[in-house]
Amino acid sequence: MNLEKSSPWDGLHEECGVFGMYDFDGNDVASTIYYGLFALQHRGQESCGIAVSETSGPKGKITTYKGMGLVNEVFTPDTLETLKGNLGVGHVRYSTAGASTRENAQPLVLNYVKGTLALAHNGNLINANELRRDLEYTGAIFQTTIDSEVIAYHIARERLNSHSAEEAVRRACQKLKGAYALVVASPRKLIGARDPFGFKPLCIGKRDNSYIITSETCALDTIGAEFVRDVRPGEVVTITKDGGIESDTSMCLPEEKEARCVFEYIYFARPDSHIDGLSVYASRIKAGRFLAQDSPVEADLVTGVPESGNAAALGYSMESGIPYGTAFVKNGYVGRTFIKPKQSSRESSVQVKLNVLKEAVAGKRVIMIDDSIVRGTTSDRIVRMLREAGATEVHVRISSPPFLWPCYFGTDIPEREQLIAYNRSIDEICEIIGADSLGYLDIDRLSQMVDGRPICKGCFNGVYPMEPPKEDIRGDYFDKEINLSRKLERM
Amino acid sequence: MNLEKSSPWDGLHEECGVFGMYDFDGNDVASTIYYGLFALQHRGQESCGIAVSETSGPKGKITTYKGMGLVNEVFTPDTLETLKGNLGVGHVRYSTAGASTRENAQPLVLNYVKGTLALAHNGNLINANELRRDLEYTGAIFQTTIDSEVIAYHIARERLNSHSAEEAVRRACQKLKGAYALVVASPRKLIGARDPFGFKPLCIGKRDNSYIITSETCALDTIGAEFVRDVRPGEVVTITKDGGIESDTSMCLPEEKEARCVFEYIYFARPDSHIDGLSVYASRIKAGRFLAQDSPVEADLVTGVPESGNAAALGYSMESGIPYGTAFVKNGYVGRTFIKPKQSSRESSVQVKLNVLKEAVAGKRVIMIDDSIVRGTTSDRIVRMLREAGATEVHVRISSPPFLWPCYFGTDIPEREQLIAYNRSIDEICEIIGADSLGYLDIDRLSQMVDGRPICKGCFNGVYPMEPPKEDIRGDYFDKEINLSRKLERM
Amino acid sequence: MNLEKSSPWDGLHEECGVFGMYDFDGNDVASTIYYGLFALQHRGQESCGIAVSETSGPKGKITTYKGMGLVNEVFTPDTLETLKGNLGVGHVRYSTAGASTRENAQPLVLNYVKGTLALAHNGNLINANELRRDLEYTGAIFQTTIDSEVIAYHIARERLNSHSAEEAVRRACQKLKGAYALVVASPRKLIGARDPFGFKPLCIGKRDNSYIITSETCALDTIGAEFVRDVRPGEVVTITKDGGIESDTSMCLPEEKEARCVFEYIYFARPDSHIDGLSVYASRIKAGRFLAQDSPVEADLVTGVPESGNAAALGYSMESGIPYGTAFVKNGYVGRTFIKPKQSSRESSVQVKLNVLKEAVAGKRVIMIDDSIVRGTTSDRIVRMLREAGATEVHVRISSPPFLWPCYFGTDIPEREQLIAYNRSIDEICEIIGADSLGYLDIDRLSQMVDGRPICKGCFNGVYPMEPPKEDIRGDYFDKEINLSRKLERM
Amino acid sequence: MNLEKSSPWDGLHEECGVFGMYDFDGNDVASTIYYGLFALQHRGQESCGIAVSETSGPKGKITTYKGMGLVNEVFTPDTLETLKGNLGVGHVRYSTAGASTRENAQPLVLNYVKGTLALAHNGNLINANELRRDLEYTGAIFQTTIDSEVIAYHIARERLNSHSAEEAVRRACQKLKGAYALVVASPRKLIGARDPFGFKPLCIGKRDNSYIITSETCALDTIGAEFVRDVRPGEVVTITKDGGIESDTSMCLPEEKEARCVFEYIYFARPDSHIDGLSVYASRIKAGRFLAQDSPVEADLVTGVPESGNAAALGYSMESGIPYGTAFVKNGYVGRTFIKPKQSSRESSVQVKLNVLKEAVAGKRVIMIDDSIVRGTTSDRIVRMLREAGATEVHVRISSPPFLWPCYFGTDIPEREQLIAYNRSIDEICEIIGADSLGYLDIDRLSQMVDGRPICKGCFNGVYPMEPPKEDIRGDYFDKEINLSRKLERM
Repeated sequence: MNLEKSSPWDGLHEECGVFGMYDFDGNDVASTIYYGLFALQHRGQESCGIAVSETSGPKGKITTYKGMGLVNEVFTPDTLETLKGNLGVGHVRYSTAGASTRENAQPLVLNYVKGTLALAHNGNLINANELRRDLEYTGAIFQTTIDSEVIAYHIARERLNSHSAEEAVRRACQKLKGAYALVVASPRKLIGARDPFGFKPLCIGKRDNSYIITSETCALDTIGAEFVRDVRPGEVVTITKDGGIESDTSMCLPEEKEARCVFEYIYFARPDSHIDGLSVYASRIKAGRFLAQDSPVEADLVTGVPESGNAAALGYSMESGIPYGTAFVKNGYVGRTFIKPKQSSRESSVQVKLNVLKEAVAGKRVIMIDDSIVRGTTSDRIVRMLREAGATEVHVRISSPPFLWPCYFGTDIPEREQLIAYNRSIDEICEIIGADSLGYLDIDRLSQMVDGRPICKGCFNGVYPMEPPKEDIRGDYFDKEINLSRKLERM
Repeated sequence: MNLEKSSPWDGLHEECGVFGMYDFDGNDVASTIYYGLFALQHRGQESCGIAVSETSGPKGKITTYKGMGLVNEVFTPDTLETLKGNLGVGHVRYSTAGASTRENAQPLVLNYVKGTLALAHNGNLINANELRRDLEYTGAIFQTTIDSEVIAYHIARERLNSHSAEEAVRRACQKLKGAYALVVASPRKLIGARDPFGFKPLCIGKRDNSYIITSETCALDTIGAEFVRDVRPGEVVTITKDGGIESDTSMCLPEEKEARCVFEYIYFARPDSHIDGLSVYASRIKAGRFLAQDSPVEADLVTGVPESGNAAALGYSMESGIPYGTAFVKNGYVGRTFIKPKQSSRESSVQVKLNVLKEAVAGKRVIMIDDSIVRGTTSDRIVRMLREAGATEVHVRISSPPFLWPCYFGTDIPEREQLIAYNRSIDEICEIIGADSLGYLDIDRLSQMVDGRPICKGCFNGVYPMEPPKEDIRGDYFDKEINLSRKLERM
Repeated sequence: MNLEKSSPWDGLHEECGVFGMYDFDGNDVASTIYYGLFALQHRGQESCGIAVSETSGPKGKITTYKGMGLVNEVFTPDTLETLKGNLGVGHVRYSTAGASTRENAQPLVLNYVKGTLALAHNGNLINANELRRDLEYTGAIFQTTIDSEVIAYHIARERLNSHSAEEAVRRACQKLKGAYALVVASPRKLIGARDPFGFKPLCIGKRDNSYIITSETCALDTIGAEFVRDVRPGEVVTITKDGGIESDTSMCLPEEKEARCVFEYIYFARPDSHIDGLSVYASRIKAGRFLAQDSPVEADLVTGVPESGNAAALGYSMESGIPYGTAFVKNGYVGRTFIKPKQSSRESSVQVKLNVLKEAVAGKRVIMIDDSIVRGTTSDRIVRMLREAGATEVHVRISSPPFLWPCYFGTDIPEREQLIAYNRSIDEICEIIGADSLGYLDIDRLSQMVDGRPICKGCFNGVYPMEPPKEDIRGDYFDKEINLSRKLERM
Repeated sequence: MNLEKSSPWDGLHEECGVFGMYDFDGNDVASTIYYGLFALQHRGQESCGIAVSETSGPKGKITTYKGMGLVNEVFTPDTLETLKGNLGVGHVRYSTAGASTRENAQPLVLNYVKGTLALAHNGNLINANELRRDLEYTGAIFQTTIDSEVIAYHIARERLNSHSAEEAVRRACQKLKGAYALVVASPRKLIGARDPFGFKPLCIGKRDNSYIITSETCALDTIGAEFVRDVRPGEVVTITKDGGIESDTSMCLPEEKEARCVFEYIYFARPDSHIDGLSVYASRIKAGRFLAQDSPVEADLVTGVPESGNAAALGYSMESGIPYGTAFVKNGYVGRTFIKPKQSSRESSVQVKLNVLKEAVAGKRVIMIDDSIVRGTTSDRIVRMLREAGATEVHVRISSPPFLWPCYFGTDIPEREQLIAYNRSIDEICEIIGADSLGYLDIDRLSQMVDGRPICKGCFNGVYPMEPPKEDIRGDYFDKEINLSRKLERM
């Protein structure tokens, strides 16, 4: 819907996917960006958009199409046909409730002193309010509530004192605190930038005579491009027709200071992606193995809560020797517009989305692996479904440590009071969800899980790579229910 | 469609309608704004929008709904229901082709240093490019191609050095050159401003304990409000709960320097509106009378090309004593989405929209009154239709002088080369359209027609109240066909 | 919306328009049918449809497109493009509330023993229930609630014993009682049929090498076709490539038994149409003249309630010598989806749709002509608006006699109890609507008005050309408000 | 789209899902039917519909809503709200191209001699043409091209000589040849009928005081109903408030003559469903085990082509001891409106939908299990993807025998010439798809797979339980591509 509740601070916390492409041979990139966004759809189902320009055309002519909904709902063949241009950026945005408005859809397209700019952003700035206020005190106006507008403003301002667009991007980035993975199309350049901690992934691909900068490698596979390399945390890369990939690493930190979001490995990213050289799938398998080592239990079957629990379940099975099997059938047709059962009705959302394969679990001791428990209400329901289908025991294993702290860098973790792990022992949680036993991944296993890459574990231990903001940056309209419902959507 | 061709300068030339309302009793104003916009629909059929806020609520919360299309296409009862607030502004926008995008729909809603602002604008600035460039050189970014964004920026900047929102509006207006009628909702105020020449109309109304600022008085009649007074050219009026109507006339010029757009009387405004104290209908009747005095001809019937020629035709009939009658039936169902006949087809747009009443014209000498001739192709067709229906003579009288010059203040006059009157004598035009005689309103009659009010006659004589811009401000995407097709739409 | 309340008997009372075309040269007819329907839009705004086939193609292949809404809402250029065929029928349907469903949209397309058939129908059968029941007792099933399905069934059954499609149509018609004007496309023929009383109009046109059968001549003008002749009451005409127009008059009655619906002349038909050789416009002018003769009054201005009162007002003015003028401005943008003001609101539907030209009426004695008064609520409001605008006297003249009886042949007249004229004297009505005087057209003038053509005046005098049905054929879902709202829509 | 190509014989071959419900307590059933259809969505994605009536209300009032698209696209909360009634039937329809029209959407709702009837049908009649022709020779008309209309006609006719609706249903069924699973709502009864061979599944469930008749048990699980029993092949069951479940088994054959469609077990049905007492999941596990026994091969990993190959893969793994694993990530967002890559583009449909987990397969000998190969083009592509991801060997095992013969009972098998197995040896096929080895399920294993239940294996061996029709009943518009694309959609 187009109905916008204008408010400065809602909608800050987005999980998104970005995809930029520059074809030096002048071929249109819109349809390839479409398939790229399609591969990144799991990173955002609220809105999407593509902006393209022709590098050989009149400088600064950008054609844009954005809309609310999934990639295949928003774009039609006709629309793609009209998006002419060999340089472009695309974006998928995560559906938070309050600010789920067309105004906030990306890419952000703008005119500034040097022409036009299209910008797509994944992440969350912790000093966005501060930066907004500073800008407002010099007369700036804001038409959206997304961080990208703040970033764009800074790029426009820095451009006045910079020799190049990439310099302006880098100077602007130096003012940003928080998580960002940016793709920018300036009239003749494709620029990518990643925050110095590397919270959010960003990588470079190549296909024939074109380059791609995108959030995950699965988007490269989907379009048949080869992976070139990851963008380094803190790096600004610039793709030009003449220079190929140019790199500015002046913002990079010593490697040990980097702090990737470990939840990208645990849940966000697609298992077939590689982030900073590590297979997401492999790290999940490893998490399952650690669980088998650290929380062993006798059982007849290991199964995953689809889809995100499957890889860890396989790892647990490999390590423990307990057979892996499918215990659930997920209804793949549950989509954005699914009508949720009313409280009063006999139907339940979980039951509509998941069904148990009685044959697979009846009479068996089942180990059920999930990637996380947030409030516990879904887990509770699923455990009950397994028992009703005849499972004699249900042992729950979670391939991440308990959530205990807020995230300031892009993950929508509910208020502490709503977290099941807050102020509760593992045994208490186990009882609440009705399991026979419960085990979480040990927090010390996380680094091992990602082969020693420096990570942010703030949501588990409250230790953040930078000073968290004092005020609550999530605003009034932050949707407390979003994380849970989103999990169900991806199950 | 939402497909936007981003370009900085297209879409400048808009004819629009504005409607702002502030209900001191706290009643919702959205549905009344809806009916107000409905009465102003003839001023713009491209897009429309409403933005409202609650003056008793948290400062700066604005709810907005905008869309492409007519008022009754864009808004639903549900949408109106959701637009809660007792202070609001609405806008209808004229359909130019190039920049007919949702991004450019108004009202423009923004956050700035003092909170939020909603702004609706009718008119055309001739220094918009200049102002944009100046702003860009200080780091501004632009997300639309409408003048309103430039105005909003200036208000935001001036607010830093102003004691009040209205002072900021006035200071911003002092930088603007051209035509503007503005309505602004700041959190607790409704502000209206009209350019010093008074090109575009703006008036104040009152209903119970609420005030309205709007483009035409017909909108006041429609909602059952009483007319209070016109906003004076150059005046900034501020409606507050405590102060009622406050006025700042510091920008006003001596009355003789004012320059109302005479085309508002001739064609734009609804006949039931009064502009600056003068009935539009009465001025058209007068134009018809002048034509009868200055271009008399013997005939059996005077008729108007519907709808805009009817009042002048009645005036001609009154003055000449020749009976007035209806000669045309207009198909009232022709709308925005009407499929135009192909060149190759046997059908023609004019014929689909108009039919002649044979009984009314057969065997008669007909005087056909129209408000203007732009390219002449429609007139040509209509004259032929009258003859085919049996009219023995067709005398065309036009209730305005010939178009010869561009307009820089909001009227979409085509390139001179396309104007039928350019480089042609009246006789030549008469021959082209196939009439037996042709008469235009004498340019000297215009002032008489509006009872001596100072007017701009630039499109007729090339004399403008201010220096016209040197560059062509209409950009590449200006739709050359728009004026003609629009006329047909309103016939 | 597509939500259908299935009920056998709702939606019987339709006013519709039909348009059939056969191009012998093989050109596609869909876009011409589109413009034809467009000209007939005033006969039905609920739904519309086009069905076409190629006479040179595989026998019985029909392509259809139907939808809820106006012609220009339902059809797109793409849709018309896909409708390939040189023989076709189109239909516009009047918006009754209950059965305003897509299922009931026409043309009805069906397969039967001889292939396919497309059928469009205007009118109302009084023995439809009876015929349905008879068919059901032989095992028929009904998927719609429109009479056309009953007619189609009978054509299909009669086809078994007929030598040709036209014979089957004629045999089927012999079973029908009531009003019908039919257009049928059988694989290689275009067939038209009109009931023996001639309630509903039907005429034949020609353009190049193609023939048209349609409801009103205005549709012929619109597409540039010439009028050939009216279909005679009771006649079945068949257009074939080889035979041109063939005629079966075996059902025709002696001319004096015919009974055209006089309301087609008074209100339904477009003024630029001719029905059975008589100009609708001329008959309305005449009605106005009669009113001036029979109900004279001293006044300064004669005006019509737009649009349908205008011609009679002009006639009154011609006869009386009192000047004709425009007193109202009608908002032409009021459409199907217009949101009606709530009872509680300060706005009123009438005021939103009509405004008075104060200059035209202030200080004047006004004669206001309308075509009919149903409940009187609108008249009441309009009279008050005239007074508020300064009219010193308001004399109402109605160009038809008072409604007193139901119509069984296609006109939606409300229950008697709701008719303002029921059980009231003219003086009482005059008082209710607040007029200074009131005059109706004398019922004896009707025949004069139509130059002596035999007409049905049942709604005025309760005398019908055939025995009316005993049961109420209008069903439960008949929308009592429809007539009034529809009038307003066409004002 | 609503554009209908009317043709008598297209669209016959449907795979569909049906769901009927009768709540004796008078509660509305529409929202439960919605969730039921949702669980059956895999059986048809083209169109869907719900028809309901109130058994306590006026007899024969049915409210219907149908539309093109998925259940969650067609229905909104408002729509469900409007569907008032405690007795209803719902339907999902499979997307064939030619006749994918709104006219053909089910349930079919009709009036007949005894009131109204709503009917939903899954299956395919082989004597539908014959029955249509017979009906046409007695004057019947057809407005759709679906078998349901033929069935409805026969029910209506038989009702004339029957004591009850269920008797009419049974008498009508006796004329039908082919596959059918019917649910019928007559004003006070819910009737289910299954053809004597039992091609299509149909079962009965119960929840509180309501009964359900539906295609698959997974729909019962989803709404929290308990499974009562299957409808027997040839049985007509009638649910009434007073009688509960009544059964008419007069059409039943000796059990050994039954002929269930084995492809329901192999592919069509959801794995969590039970058909005639047998778990679909269990039968697929078994198929995998048989493959391991009959076509063993040394390897490191067994994997399924998602989703339909997974269960057989698990069975293969269990039997062989070779580890099971996930090798593919499927993009769950591929939907109906997905834009297929152009032939010329670098992207491929398969690659957009599937990606390989390199870590899972690199350096491994992989056994890839799929449920069937139709043309082989998809298999070819997937095998190549596995190799590119580093699989050293790729052994393909298919959990069904090779397709060699047409199906006349509801499965869209392409022309023989397009079947990869037609006129080719297994080795030849293996080479074409590029596998290292290929094994199909032996046809003799099928009966074992379903625990000896009598099945139809016609598509594998050309032996059908009844004489197949002589003419090609699939018509001109049968979409040759449908089976393949549909498989991909469900992957």
